[in-house]
Amino acid sequence: MLLHLSTWPEVETYLQSSRGIILPIGSTEQHGPTGLIGTDAICAEAIAKGVGETTQALVGPTINVGMALHHMAFPGSMSLRPSTLIAVIQDYLTSLTQAGFQRFFFINGHGGNIATLKAAFSETYHHLALLRIPGAEQVQCKVGNWFMCSSVYNLAKELYGLQEGSHATPSEVALTQYVHPEAIKKAPLSEKVASGYPIYGAADFRRHYPDGRMGSNPALATPTHGKQFYELAVKELSNTYLEFLKKGD
Amino acid sequence: MLLHLSTWPEVETYLQSSRGIILPIGSTEQHGPTGLIGTDAICAEAIAKGVGETTQALVGPTINVGMALHHMAFPGSMSLRPSTLIAVIQDYLTSLTQAGFQRFFFINGHGGNIATLKAAFSETYHHLALLRIPGAEQVQCKVGNWFMCSSVYNLAKELYGLQEGSHATPSEVALTQYVHPEAIKKAPLSEKVASGYPIYGAADFRRHYPDGRMGSNPALATPTHGKQFYELAVKELSNTYLEFLKKGD
Amino acid sequence: MLLHLSTWPEVETYLQSSRGIILPIGSTEQHGPTGLIGTDAICAEAIAKGVGETTQALVGPTINVGMALHHMAFPGSMSLRPSTLIAVIQDYLTSLTQAGFQRFFFINGHGGNIATLKAAFSETYHHLALLRIPGAEQVQCKVGNWFMCSSVYNLAKELYGLQEGSHATPSEVALTQYVHPEAIKKAPLSEKVASGYPIYGAADFRRHYPDGRMGSNPALATPTHGKQFYELAVKELSNTYLEFLKKGD
Amino acid sequence: MLLHLSTWPEVETYLQSSRGIILPIGSTEQHGPTGLIGTDAICAEAIAKGVGETTQALVGPTINVGMALHHMAFPGSMSLRPSTLIAVIQDYLTSLTQAGFQRFFFINGHGGNIATLKAAFSETYHHLALLRIPGAEQVQCKVGNWFMCSSVYNLAKELYGLQEGSHATPSEVALTQYVHPEAIKKAPLSEKVASGYPIYGAADFRRHYPDGRMGSNPALATPTHGKQFYELAVKELSNTYLEFLKKGD
Amino acid sequence: MLLHLSTWPEVETYLQSSRGIILPIGSTEQHGPTGLIGTDAICAEAIAKGVGETTQALVGPTINVGMALHHMAFPGSMSLRPSTLIAVIQDYLTSLTQAGFQRFFFINGHGGNIATLKAAFSETYHHLALLRIPGAEQVQCKVGNWFMCSSVYNLAKELYGLQEGSHATPSEVALTQYVHPEAIKKAPLSEKVASGYPIYGAADFRRHYPDGRMGSNPALATPTHGKQFYELAVKELSNTYLEFLKKGD
Amino acid sequence: MLLHLSTWPEVETYLQSSRGIILPIGSTEQHGPTGLIGTDAICAEAIAKGVGETTQALVGPTINVGMALHHMAFPGSMSLRPSTLIAVIQDYLTSLTQAGFQRFFFINGHGGNIATLKAAFSETYHHLALLRIPGAEQVQCKVGNWFMCSSVYNLAKELYGLQEGSHATPSEVALTQYVHPEAIKKAPLSEKVASGYPIYGAADFRRHYPDGRMGSNPALATPTHGKQFYELAVKELSNTYLEFLKKGD
Repeated sequence: MLLHLSTWPEVETYLQSSRGIILPIGSTEQHGPTGLIGTDAICAEAIAKGVGETTQALVGPTINVGMALHHMAFPGSMSLRPSTLIAVIQDYLTSLTQAGFQRFFFINGHGGNIATLKAAFSETYHHLALLRIPGAEQVQCKVGNWFMCSSVYNLAKELYGLQEGSHATPSEVALTQYVHPEAIKKAPLSEKVASGYPIYGAADFRRHYPDGRMGSNPALATPTHGKQFYELAVKELSNTYLEFLKKGD
Repeated sequence: MLLHLSTWPEVETYLQSSRGIILPIGSTEQHGPTGLIGTDAICAEAIAKGVGETTQALVGPTINVGMALHHMAFPGSMSLRPSTLIAVIQDYLTSLTQAGFQRFFFINGHGGNIATLKAAFSETYHHLALLRIPGAEQVQCKVGNWFMCSSVYNLAKELYGLQEGSHATPSEVALTQYVHPEAIKKAPLSEKVASGYPIYGAADFRRHYPDGRMGSNPALATPTHGKQFYELAVKELSNTYLEFLKKGD
Repeated sequence: MLLHLSTWPEVETYLQSSRGIILPIGSTEQHGPTGLIGTDAICAEAIAKGVGETTQALVGPTINVGMALHHMAFPGSMSLRPSTLIAVIQDYLTSLTQAGFQRFFFINGHGGNIATLKAAFSETYHHLALLRIPGAEQVQCKVGNWFMCSSVYNLAKELYGLQEGSHATPSEVALTQYVHPEAIKKAPLSEKVASGYPIYGAADFRRHYPDGRMGSNPALATPTHGKQFYELAVKELSNTYLEFLKKGD
Repeated sequence: MLLHLSTWPEVETYLQSSRGIILPIGSTEQHGPTGLIGTDAICAEAIAKGVGETTQALVGPTINVGMALHHMAFPGSMSLRPSTLIAVIQDYLTSLTQAGFQRFFFINGHGGNIATLKAAFSETYHHLALLRIPGAEQVQCKVGNWFMCSSVYNLAKELYGLQEGSHATPSEVALTQYVHPEAIKKAPLSEKVASGYPIYGAADFRRHYPDGRMGSNPALATPTHGKQFYELAVKELSNTYLEFLKKGD
Repeated sequence: MLLHLSTWPEVETYLQSSRGIILPIGSTEQHGPTGLIGTDAICAEAIAKGVGETTQALVGPTINVGMALHHMAFPGSMSLRPSTLIAVIQDYLTSLTQAGFQRFFFINGHGGNIATLKAAFSETYHHLALLRIPGAEQVQCKVGNWFMCSSVYNLAKELYGLQEGSHATPSEVALTQYVHPEAIKKAPLSEKVASGYPIYGAADFRRHYPDGRMGSNPALATPTHGKQFYELAVKELSNTYLEFLKKGD
Repeated sequence: MLLHLSTWPEVETYLQSSRGIILPIGSTEQHGPTGLIGTDAICAEAIAKGVGETTQALVGPTINVGMALHHMAFPGSMSLRPSTLIAVIQDYLTSLTQAGFQRFFFINGHGGNIATLKAAFSETYHHLALLRIPGAEQVQCKVGNWFMCSSVYNLAKELYGLQEGSHATPSEVALTQYVHPEAIKKAPLSEKVASGYPIYGAADFRRHYPDGRMGSNPALATPTHGKQFYELAVKELSNTYLEFLKKGD
């Protein structure tokens, strides 16, 4: 059930049986010479919809732009500052908590969002509690990173080994190929690819990762792989979500 | 050309021939008993894609949650505070200006966004100029509200007369029916519908507009109407965008 | 009744019969070669006092500096950023709501303030409601732009036709001449005056409007005209204010 | 020379001979049973105009609402939060520094503003320097508190002794009587008046100072005294301003 | 009793007999060629511990970095912006007020903190009251500046006369020598030392005070003096704290 | 070399041979019935000093209060909101970058700080780059969590097995016992201790972890263990710091 395709009375009805909502969060950032700039949002949204169908959960609108300041030296990348993203998350959760939601499951497509999301959750619990919004003390947030699902991780290892890398990975590229077969890109990829250098600022990042990839070989990706990743992630995160709902009781 | 389905080298190439980008902005808010909560985002995104195809313009990711604080008393509605939305817009435009973009055309689906967008543009021009980001003085922003296109307005008047109303209107509902025929909702609508009362806070809004509609009869909407609205809006806003690009020269 | 010329016990008494207050808001910005930098504040303050006398309303202190970032390339112009103005409005209304005021009528002298004021009202309704300040849900704000009064508009059209323009207009200059006859300025004005170009950043504005006027011929202004504008605006906005108080009931 | 009664070319000319500007800052807050709510703004503005005439300095618009949070339990009082006032001052000085001003002399009517003004100056020096705005390193700010002028202090002591008190003082009331003889208020004043208790929050303040006075007997004020205070303050602060301009060289 | 060396049950017990806490605040800034960068924090912390022992008060953790923007042109100096320091103080006091603390005695080692601390107290009283945190209306804050204790001042005058100066003073250097005899620094000091110039921005400060001292001769300091200053400050501020606790009742 | 025990000329000299600085960050929060509230700050500071001695690095002042909002239901706990901590870190690094520092190694004593620190680093890289502060693009930050050192982890496992737990652990308590043998606390500890429940808001945390411990048995701690942990952490983090300095070249 997609929030965007629902009416408010339908949401009112939904709240009588569940306090949970799934919120996909991605990023808009370079993914190497062949990866889509929307990769992280596309993956998060597709998987979130799948989890929503599997678990009958409501799925909110996708946060398309996340925390990707280190990618800013590549054109087409967009980012919120962490303090802006904290304000966004706080506003989202204040809206939804006032309506009665209490379990927020963020399906996340971008490693760079994790730290800020955690900071935002802390700030929001505190904010809602200080304001004594009804239900504030029951609010719980959780991040589900699809690319960190053990089933996904294992398949990626099996299919790509070390060529999975850590950004513009074949697994995420494969997933976007499955979701958007009309947008499969080809470009020559140098065999040698930088890896292992830590992430600092944007200029430093581009100096060390000149084509945007981090240790990955996205040429290995296929739409069929993408379907596999999709199904594994949906299955694993559906379980995570259902346990999250239960545990909170 | 969708930013999310492009690679960074493709964006680099695009920037050699154009400095313009289209940014759809919607809202996540109640639209009466039968209107979709995502109506404003769905309309803005669909039309933006259409304009992008017509004009060969790059289309950025949709801002799904806008300024809808006055709808907060209806479950499922979400909103940024105006100060948060200003920060979001500033971050978006800072990212894109650094990459070389200079013409930002927001295709907007929600009247409640207009004031904050204008405020955000002023704040951003100032911010970019103070930081002396290269190109800052050439940056120009423009809002295109599809529902205020004269062709759209005239068709709505012709089809629905006064029953168009001003929120959860048959024209916007029709457009969502065209885009999402699988999500056409039916619900009894009282014949009498509140209208003409100004918008203040959320509780006050719900007191005066108990089912969320403002003077509208969305039962008049059909997917065929939606197609007409879509085509008129795409045509008119495509012209607006092309003129915007030219004027700036 | 001016707040600044009242004592707190007088305000306490006033609140027993009215919850309304008038807040003049202007700007401090260039108004062409002959217009006063304080034009918008002078007009708003004078008219607000007139409306206060006509309606027995309390008139608060004038906000002298508004949102005029696009005029910053002309010396003597001052501006708040929109986010600062939102904070200012929120602080004003928080103070006054706590004392029992609930109807805030902003008499505005500057078009550039309108968007930010609207954004500020939304942010403030939400803020007061979240804090559950007593009376928060009854708070209502309204902007009365004196230069958009239909009677004012018609007279300006009649007296000046197209030479009214849209900034440093003869009508606003006339009003300042009526209020401050000791400060009537003369300077050569080029016959040709820029007009029709949209407003972006400050440097861009000055490039397109080199002497600060937007399509206007302020040389047509006379103090006698100013008196007429003053009287029309006071009359029309007094009615608007009284209806605003009533409607809110 | 008042900024509000000047044109931008006049300011441009002024800047060729002086980099200084006077900015009056007051407050909108209770001043006991007979003191005007606008007392601090009225005094600061009147004296600033006097200093402007004496020294040929440009006088900017009055900041009518200052930092008066501790007076909020008395109706009619208004306040900015310190963080808002810091943003306001920063915006003012950013505007004016960009135009070429470098000496900012705040003529202040309210003790409660002093700490926040000092904080704001520090924040602004830093802000302007980080942005490397031309002239930023020459910017200097100074507060002139008229009520702390030694000549004013001595006269108050001579006329009122201990009954001068520290808020709603006869000296400031006298000054407003001189400026606004039409608004002289009478009300019974208890002979016993609280004094010596430090200032904390608003509720605490009203508990300890139930009628708003702090140790003062404003019934001693006369318009003639007011004229004397006015003239002493204008003379002393004119000298202070001229020395401030010189020292900065 | 140091908060950092206590357990939460010990704090719970403490709160049954006292609502007071001492918070040392210093600065991290240049103190001339021989003064320690941590001087203000070292002095504040040492004296706070002494006052804690004398009065059985709980002593919180030291704020090591304060408002020292004007010292930023000397390497090793660190500063919060005033608006950041206000947020820090507000967060500290919100935490502690929620636990039941109501009397906050800041023992301060740096003149540059005073204005911002006062601003922060005002902002915090207001913040806590708006949120209606239990006990908010009883919250009281006070700054005790050890270097302004009359006993300290008199001794400094007696020992050093005019060579006490106003920054990098022999009295504060002496106190650090007493606390950290292992870190007594020697360096040639020019006999002539700048003094009397007001404080503006950082570059301006360094231009006028090239070695960082303001009119002082820290070569006069001895650890024995330091001990005397320490004992005087502890005694005087212990009395101040005890009176502060009493008065609030 | 401690920044607080250095003079600015010493820092100037230091910068000629190193761009690195160590910044200890702790927290002020409950650590169970016997753990010190200052545990995380004490550990971070002690280890940072050790690393500074080992590596000849400059050690800045300790951040005593971190992000501990989830501990706020236990008296004596203090916390910054994440957005405040981001501002603090940004101010620290802006100060130090302007002086020429480029490698910031945070020695961290509290898991709850990690996410916000990472967010703060991203925000700061971006901030410094936008302002084009000289050296901004060379700035690199790194967190060293002493409790996550592999040598520390292994020893804790060996000594305590599962009774190490994850908050108020015997390893951190041991380290404080080594540093502060005068403050070893005894209190009855229930044998059964909650564990495994995720962290949400403060009230929820206390509901699930009623005495503050998370799965730990701090009664196993001894000062001798503490010395071992101290030495292992100093050794391991000294290597990490030296590699960090090298890598950045």
